[in-house]
Amino acid sequence: MQTLKSKRAASPQSEPQSSLGTRLFATRQLSSDLATPLGPEDMVVQATDDASPTKWHLAHVTWFFETFVLSKFAPGYRVFDERFGFCFNSYYESQGARHPRQKRGLLTRPTVEEVLAYRAHVDGALADLFAGGDGIEPEAARLIEIGINHEQQHQELLLTDILALFAANPLRPAYRQPGPRAVGRAAPRRGPLWLDFPGGVHHVGHDGRGFAWDNEGPRHEALIHPFRLADRLVTNGEWLEFIADGGYRNALLWLADGWATVTREGWDAPCYWENIDGAWLSMTLEGRLAPDPSAPVAHVSYFEADAFARWAGKRLPTEFEWEVAAADLSVAGNDLSTGALRPLPADGDGAADCPRQMFGDVWEWTQSAYLPYPGYRAPEGAIGEYNGKFMVSQQVLRGGSCATPPGHIRPTYRNFFYPHQRWQFTGLRLAADVSP
Amino acid sequence: MQTLKSKRAASPQSEPQSSLGTRLFATRQLSSDLATPLGPEDMVVQATDDASPTKWHLAHVTWFFETFVLSKFAPGYRVFDERFGFCFNSYYESQGARHPRQKRGLLTRPTVEEVLAYRAHVDGALADLFAGGDGIEPEAARLIEIGINHEQQHQELLLTDILALFAANPLRPAYRQPGPRAVGRAAPRRGPLWLDFPGGVHHVGHDGRGFAWDNEGPRHEALIHPFRLADRLVTNGEWLEFIADGGYRNALLWLADGWATVTREGWDAPCYWENIDGAWLSMTLEGRLAPDPSAPVAHVSYFEADAFARWAGKRLPTEFEWEVAAADLSVAGNDLSTGALRPLPADGDGAADCPRQMFGDVWEWTQSAYLPYPGYRAPEGAIGEYNGKFMVSQQVLRGGSCATPPGHIRPTYRNFFYPHQRWQFTGLRLAADVSP
Amino acid sequence: MQTLKSKRAASPQSEPQSSLGTRLFATRQLSSDLATPLGPEDMVVQATDDASPTKWHLAHVTWFFETFVLSKFAPGYRVFDERFGFCFNSYYESQGARHPRQKRGLLTRPTVEEVLAYRAHVDGALADLFAGGDGIEPEAARLIEIGINHEQQHQELLLTDILALFAANPLRPAYRQPGPRAVGRAAPRRGPLWLDFPGGVHHVGHDGRGFAWDNEGPRHEALIHPFRLADRLVTNGEWLEFIADGGYRNALLWLADGWATVTREGWDAPCYWENIDGAWLSMTLEGRLAPDPSAPVAHVSYFEADAFARWAGKRLPTEFEWEVAAADLSVAGNDLSTGALRPLPADGDGAADCPRQMFGDVWEWTQSAYLPYPGYRAPEGAIGEYNGKFMVSQQVLRGGSCATPPGHIRPTYRNFFYPHQRWQFTGLRLAADVSP
Amino acid sequence: MQTLKSKRAASPQSEPQSSLGTRLFATRQLSSDLATPLGPEDMVVQATDDASPTKWHLAHVTWFFETFVLSKFAPGYRVFDERFGFCFNSYYESQGARHPRQKRGLLTRPTVEEVLAYRAHVDGALADLFAGGDGIEPEAARLIEIGINHEQQHQELLLTDILALFAANPLRPAYRQPGPRAVGRAAPRRGPLWLDFPGGVHHVGHDGRGFAWDNEGPRHEALIHPFRLADRLVTNGEWLEFIADGGYRNALLWLADGWATVTREGWDAPCYWENIDGAWLSMTLEGRLAPDPSAPVAHVSYFEADAFARWAGKRLPTEFEWEVAAADLSVAGNDLSTGALRPLPADGDGAADCPRQMFGDVWEWTQSAYLPYPGYRAPEGAIGEYNGKFMVSQQVLRGGSCATPPGHIRPTYRNFFYPHQRWQFTGLRLAADVSP
Repeated sequence: MQTLKSKRAASPQSEPQSSLGTRLFATRQLSSDLATPLGPEDMVVQATDDASPTKWHLAHVTWFFETFVLSKFAPGYRVFDERFGFCFNSYYESQGARHPRQKRGLLTRPTVEEVLAYRAHVDGALADLFAGGDGIEPEAARLIEIGINHEQQHQELLLTDILALFAANPLRPAYRQPGPRAVGRAAPRRGPLWLDFPGGVHHVGHDGRGFAWDNEGPRHEALIHPFRLADRLVTNGEWLEFIADGGYRNALLWLADGWATVTREGWDAPCYWENIDGAWLSMTLEGRLAPDPSAPVAHVSYFEADAFARWAGKRLPTEFEWEVAAADLSVAGNDLSTGALRPLPADGDGAADCPRQMFGDVWEWTQSAYLPYPGYRAPEGAIGEYNGKFMVSQQVLRGGSCATPPGHIRPTYRNFFYPHQRWQFTGLRLAADVSP
Repeated sequence: MQTLKSKRAASPQSEPQSSLGTRLFATRQLSSDLATPLGPEDMVVQATDDASPTKWHLAHVTWFFETFVLSKFAPGYRVFDERFGFCFNSYYESQGARHPRQKRGLLTRPTVEEVLAYRAHVDGALADLFAGGDGIEPEAARLIEIGINHEQQHQELLLTDILALFAANPLRPAYRQPGPRAVGRAAPRRGPLWLDFPGGVHHVGHDGRGFAWDNEGPRHEALIHPFRLADRLVTNGEWLEFIADGGYRNALLWLADGWATVTREGWDAPCYWENIDGAWLSMTLEGRLAPDPSAPVAHVSYFEADAFARWAGKRLPTEFEWEVAAADLSVAGNDLSTGALRPLPADGDGAADCPRQMFGDVWEWTQSAYLPYPGYRAPEGAIGEYNGKFMVSQQVLRGGSCATPPGHIRPTYRNFFYPHQRWQFTGLRLAADVSP
Repeated sequence: MQTLKSKRAASPQSEPQSSLGTRLFATRQLSSDLATPLGPEDMVVQATDDASPTKWHLAHVTWFFETFVLSKFAPGYRVFDERFGFCFNSYYESQGARHPRQKRGLLTRPTVEEVLAYRAHVDGALADLFAGGDGIEPEAARLIEIGINHEQQHQELLLTDILALFAANPLRPAYRQPGPRAVGRAAPRRGPLWLDFPGGVHHVGHDGRGFAWDNEGPRHEALIHPFRLADRLVTNGEWLEFIADGGYRNALLWLADGWATVTREGWDAPCYWENIDGAWLSMTLEGRLAPDPSAPVAHVSYFEADAFARWAGKRLPTEFEWEVAAADLSVAGNDLSTGALRPLPADGDGAADCPRQMFGDVWEWTQSAYLPYPGYRAPEGAIGEYNGKFMVSQQVLRGGSCATPPGHIRPTYRNFFYPHQRWQFTGLRLAADVSP
Repeated sequence: MQTLKSKRAASPQSEPQSSLGTRLFATRQLSSDLATPLGPEDMVVQATDDASPTKWHLAHVTWFFETFVLSKFAPGYRVFDERFGFCFNSYYESQGARHPRQKRGLLTRPTVEEVLAYRAHVDGALADLFAGGDGIEPEAARLIEIGINHEQQHQELLLTDILALFAANPLRPAYRQPGPRAVGRAAPRRGPLWLDFPGGVHHVGHDGRGFAWDNEGPRHEALIHPFRLADRLVTNGEWLEFIADGGYRNALLWLADGWATVTREGWDAPCYWENIDGAWLSMTLEGRLAPDPSAPVAHVSYFEADAFARWAGKRLPTEFEWEVAAADLSVAGNDLSTGALRPLPADGDGAADCPRQMFGDVWEWTQSAYLPYPGYRAPEGAIGEYNGKFMVSQQVLRGGSCATPPGHIRPTYRNFFYPHQRWQFTGLRLAADVSP
């Protein structure tokens, strides 16, 4: 498993342009690679209102480079097709009218082939930009860096949206055939180890060295109360106990909105779990498989994570507790680079007194609402619409997942979803108060 | 324009098996041909809950032959894929559980290629059946005939569903590039000619010679009151007058359910019409074009047809009035065989004192509700679910459309849709009472 | 049980004005009487979108007289409150904007007291009109007659809407305390007697002598095929057999729209039936009671009636079959005048070879869609909106119910509801074809 | 205007029982008094899913005393009606099944009269409890105190729910006739004064002396960054500028969820505002009146408050900023005790360098999500369902309103609503960062 922390040292400002270009084209290539196992039919359909088609992801990230980089910084750039702006703008109100989000799956045209031509056209122009003798302007470099990170986010979504699509197909097709599984792995000890952290005023948020999203700053002081954190994620095995104990049937464990969702939707297990003749199976990118009891549970909503924590007599960590615990760790784990495409059991026995599985595997729900940090102001311009306008009614998740591209995650990274959503690789780690 | 009436003379019982086989394989071939202009992306997506993907149509009609013919009459037939029954059953409750209708567009697998292989497999087995020395059993022949007619219905749906899909695409792609249009065709005289028909007891319904759907019989006597029928369909030009006169804004012209639909949906023109800078354009299988004032209006609901008739001081015909007027006509017109793919202006000047445009062009809304004929009983078995269970809340349409395959239509043919639906090629012909 | 047929002989044209006035004020009084058992709270709430509050009924029928009679024919009439038109117009588009139907229950003001004052004001003005020396103008008399019949329709709705309200109350309050029930009444013979009727051309529709709604005419000839009619209504006992035989679980018995409704709504019995510890109870105007096996089943939808008939190997009659069978009968039965407020077992043993329970007890679903008769034209003016604009997607019911005011029903009377509706006293009588 | 702070000194533990009883019966009386202007019709109807009928409020708070106090602490207490638990339980899952929230308006029975009898029965039993020689047990006293505060919350809801009901009535009835308005009051200076507050670690949350809800604690340390707070609430006059400047039409001012709500609901002004012939009128408890430009704006959602703040180049305060600013103030203001029933312009000229309108007038939206405080645990038992289970997706509001009963509010009080809700008296005060 690759340690990615070294990558963080380099910032787009300081790195040579060749490095920026290398990362750009590697990122562009990865998107295409991720689509390789898919047929054109797979790439056009929208599984749910939350998900987007593969083709749309591939085109949208390309539109981003065309609109915010090439049209502004590449002299003489010819827009590939003027109509694509309407088709592939996601939500930038400042960029004009756009195709409705929930109807992205109707866009059978442009075809996959045309979208790939669009990608090639834009990649060519980006290559020209880098090949120019004058170097990349700093503002262009800044936007390219954003474009890289933006495309990485859509790489993760591409995978989770394909999983949603294949899970809705009665044939339950696999994105990839399952490889050999580790055999003989022991189920985890009953219960995690607990790591204590002292309270006090900590600095949280991104310090501005290297790339970060606007919502990770400004870096500021926060008062943390002493807390305790599990050294590993909650497992499928533990979740099966929760189910067996009637966790999905006991209203008193749930937030009111959560209970309403459970009863309305008939939830009785994580998303993609099916009970076949008394045994639970879970739909994965490798098809339908029995959940590994020692692997982290995934595809649970905030409502479920919160109810599980209450059932366990614990709670979820706040986002700052998580960040404090993660601050000094190497940013390494089971991310997309491992190729596992699923959360894996924690390595080792946890005796090292250091939290495991902090990066990769599953995004970890925190009890923190997604809100602006003190002093936060959304940037001016279209890019300013990126994060700030979602700061209500959602919860923060930390740490990345098995579908997060390497180099994309940081200790200060804030992901956010609505409390009912569960089609992402979302899981949880328990926390607890420390009595003074 | 081909006269198709001669085809009606032959019935599956009387025709040589070679003829049945010829029609079967020609029908199978036509379905594939209709899909030729489409890419795999176009063939997988479901435009609306009413529509189905092209791939689904291609597979469903194949499943019909596999399930009702080959599995019963082809010794040793091997089902292509046991899982396809779940995927491609439409609504036959007796055939077990099935994929939900409104989620057909999620079936990216089986792929188009696999569906074509499925078609080839079934076609091969059907060919073997015909090649057998023993001939086709009468019951098998009967079911093959049903299968042919069933596939023809889905050919029409394939085209209307693709139109719905392309109309929802901001690029407004064309199924086919528009050919040269007749130039210099005069707009029709203002108003149709009116043809009078006497009242009396008439025989209506199918007489059992040749193929017909169960809902066309039993043939029976019906009392018709004297009536008057327009010799041609209502035109786009007349519809533009209706719009200009505020037809969509005058509640008193509308049925109560119709007015509720108009206000809820914001209807102000037929389906697929858009007002671009003051001019109406209509989405067609040849892309977005200005409506031809002399061509029949299409894509109007029963609510609109009824309101137009009231505005015009007329009414819609009953299905039996229409059938009496059509009974002695040659079953010929602008159906799929002309290749026009759109309704055409009426030929000639109408002086022949004979209704024109009765077959093809557009399905004609009648004021008759879709109900069983006296003595009707749904057939036993799965095929019995075909027509009878829809006999409530729908209106009868007559005459076929420009998307109806040749040989499929008859004077006794009863099509039926809900009064709000308008994605089919649906139009109208006016009728009036004759004062005694 | 009172025989009401004699009343039909008199028409508003021919009867002395004193008689018209007598009927008018008796009708006005009956509405008030029906509200007597209700408290002000009961009178303001709207149980469902289909139902209206008692207070709204009392005010709306009054608004009808004020708007269509007094404002036009009573010189110097002062409108009680100009704002009531907005509040109490039901659906007359020509009479301007109005309070939305589904929000009638929000009208806590005007209060019940104010509505009663409104009624008194209008009744006073109507009395003045009759007291005037000049007599009532024929057009005014015609509109008063319509107003009487209109108010009678709302009397029936007042009762069914109160039943809907009380059925939704966990206390299951009774509109009236149950009186003593007939004891020792034998359950009906197993199955009805069957009465044969010859086919032929019959006159149907109202002949214009005496009052009728516009939708009952024009009288015209209709061809009836020989048929057979049950001499009594389907009973609760028979319905219990249908339930016990899995009638609500067998998709093949149902129209497709009906089956979709059954599964979506979870229907397993008629409306207002509850299974308490294995026994069925039915909510009635006298509270929750065990259904009488020999009494007619009520509160079934068209979907259920149709499925029952199919289960029984029979069918529903057409509206003209029913009318032919009813044409020569005395218009008498268990209507509102009997005070039973519930359908009653058929009198006698049915040996008289004459259909029983044709009037009163329950409205009988027919297999006829609600459509205009040949030559029908909606009247001009606001009253013209009364019936014609509902002529789509509904089914005709015949014969009146236990909540129909005496004198309101006729052999030609056409009631109509959507096939899913069942809060009225709706039931069924079986019919069958006669093999030639 | 009454200063209420002195009341806070007394806690239920320390105050004599006579004082607890005095407050209890005064509270019980106030509920009845608030219902006095209403007729029985007004008291039964539910205006929206969010609102409840007056009668339901009166009964529910009574059920609370019966269930949690009398049934446990009053020996021999006879439950008034066993069926009322089902009717009047709000959301206590632990107390068993209950009538669905959105159908409370169907409960025309028990009648208002019966509910008043229920109140009298429970009041009598409570009086007996106080009259007993043994004094009130501490646990009973604790629950009575909760019951008092619970009833006070429903007093505020009773008023806001009646406003919602009357606003939906086309007659726009007034709960109370408007009294004389202060004349000659100058519009406020353009813009508020800004008060600076230093940062640092502050104690927030309730200290346990006197009554508080569980969600106000535990008291804990929080790090506050330096901030600036407006000395008064945002006014109607300022809101009219926001409207005039296109605030409701500029997507870039809004949170994404907010903009979706604006477009879906067609919002163009605060709730209850109507534009009549170009002038804004606002529905109030005194009927429809022109908004006072110098009075605080009310009935705005969090989405609107947030958009306004962004438009103004400011932000909303956090709940702790608000609490720090309020900590040392006298808890006095325009609450229910002033009888104004509407937000009033700020007193004085603001020169006192002290925030005005902190208590009463309108609940102030904060940018803080409603979440548990560090160390919070929901209490055991039914009362434990009171606050904790709503801690997701809602925003905190502070300070009380013109409908908040005197004695109910505190600096630590946390109210909470969903960001789209606006039927309460909700407004805002601006805050800003202080540059270091």
